[in-house]
Amino acid sequence: MELWFSEFQTKNVKISFKINNVLHSSKSKYQKITVLETEDYGRLLALDDLVMLTTKDEFFYHEMISHVPLLTHENPSKVLVIGGGDGGTIREIIKHPVKEIHLVEIDKEVIETSKKYFPSVSSGFSDPRVKVFCEDGIEFVKNNKGYDVIIIDSTDPIGPAVGLFSRAFYNDAYNSLNENGIMVAQTESPIFCNQLIKRVYHDVSSIFAFTNLYTAVIPTYPGAYWTFTMGSKGINPLEREISNTPAFKTKFYCRELHKSYFILPPFLKEIIYK
Amino acid sequence: MELWFSEFQTKNVKISFKINNVLHSSKSKYQKITVLETEDYGRLLALDDLVMLTTKDEFFYHEMISHVPLLTHENPSKVLVIGGGDGGTIREIIKHPVKEIHLVEIDKEVIETSKKYFPSVSSGFSDPRVKVFCEDGIEFVKNNKGYDVIIIDSTDPIGPAVGLFSRAFYNDAYNSLNENGIMVAQTESPIFCNQLIKRVYHDVSSIFAFTNLYTAVIPTYPGAYWTFTMGSKGINPLEREISNTPAFKTKFYCRELHKSYFILPPFLKEIIYK
Repeated sequence: MELWFSEFQTKNVKISFKINNVLHSSKSKYQKITVLETEDYGRLLALDDLVMLTTKDEFFYHEMISHVPLLTHENPSKVLVIGGGDGGTIREIIKHPVKEIHLVEIDKEVIETSKKYFPSVSSGFSDPRVKVFCEDGIEFVKNNKGYDVIIIDSTDPIGPAVGLFSRAFYNDAYNSLNENGIMVAQTESPIFCNQLIKRVYHDVSSIFAFTNLYTAVIPTYPGAYWTFTMGSKGINPLEREISNTPAFKTKFYCRELHKSYFILPPFLKEIIYK
Repeated sequence: MELWFSEFQTKNVKISFKINNVLHSSKSKYQKITVLETEDYGRLLALDDLVMLTTKDEFFYHEMISHVPLLTHENPSKVLVIGGGDGGTIREIIKHPVKEIHLVEIDKEVIETSKKYFPSVSSGFSDPRVKVFCEDGIEFVKNNKGYDVIIIDSTDPIGPAVGLFSRAFYNDAYNSLNENGIMVAQTESPIFCNQLIKRVYHDVSSIFAFTNLYTAVIPTYPGAYWTFTMGSKGINPLEREISNTPAFKTKFYCRELHKSYFILPPFLKEIIYK
């Protein structure tokens, strides 16, 4: 028998993976959590049947959502991650000489599942600098301050994650940040989500001194070409020269390309400004 | 009734498009040619059930396979395209002040189909500098010389295109090129085709003075992250500074990023050198 898992990337486009094994399937308080062993992409984590990561291509996403803001800031001490219960973003952040990392994940079952089935992704949770809060990220940023970098590693803007794409939330994130603080949010694909990208860009622009998008390829995400929106209180990312000597290993992120990531192709500039 | 077209990107991964209409389906001497109207990606051209282009995302591919070599050369006069019967690469080449463009497409039905169903892609065929040869590209390069740039815009390395990925063919392309000539080939995705990429890199390196890969995202191609392998007889692409003022419009290619395209992520360097 052949088993296939299909994700509706839109209602008109599907990606399907041949499955060797269903390793885990549960329903938490917040969502359906599934772990599959695929033939070609390694293990796959799905929340509500949407692909969150595969072990083969998760590094594109996790490296780009973490190293770009942390190296733009240059000297971050306290970092907040909202979402990111799989731990992939944490795994990258601990490569930096930061002092404290707070992860706010609303669904503790995502963390438990990742620790069990994705040890190579969740490896950073054991770092003593990491503190996990199983709370609502939207409430958390209202009540906690003093961060140098905030990374919004959310699911798609449906269900409980809708509020993580709101102007009010970005404003609370701004207030949670120290002077020269930087916020980054994953903001979906310009192949399918132009209106969202444009709205978030303008919302963040209305709050932060500098607003910049950067992009990465993520093969298994809808549209495969992904955006991250960065709001910066004082540092202009376009002026940041990053040393070419990496202090740690990466697979996709290159320091030599750091400034280049912020140079957008014309079609994406048009989405933002038209 | 819902109509879906599924492409097997590998035998274990499929991408499926909801179809409004089947506009064309025929069997040429060489392959099955299908034109579909999709809901989300516009019109889609498939050869032997493999996606060649969609009107929504073809610009990523066609701009990157043409502008990168032509602007690296800086002053190309005579250009050869092998394959590329849809015309997308020609459409981009005619934006440059070249004098002559030869297209060698083995299957004239691909050209006819593109002219009928993809007018926005095939628009360059009417340019007086373009001459079309419906011949085998492998034989053509053995017998024709004097090109400044050769672009190998082939299908996947199966069936008639296998020879277009051979060392013997790259050697013939070398001999067809003028002094300082440049050859570029589409060389598949590092997500699925590591061995091919590595072999082509080493084959091209054994012939050309400079061999460089560059990459682009192409959402509907298997793995979505694509490589192009460039062999250059005399010009070092890493030393080419390109003016930031574009002489023509593009959607994805940016002159500001020209040199950056050749800086490869660590995982891709490892594929080539390990």
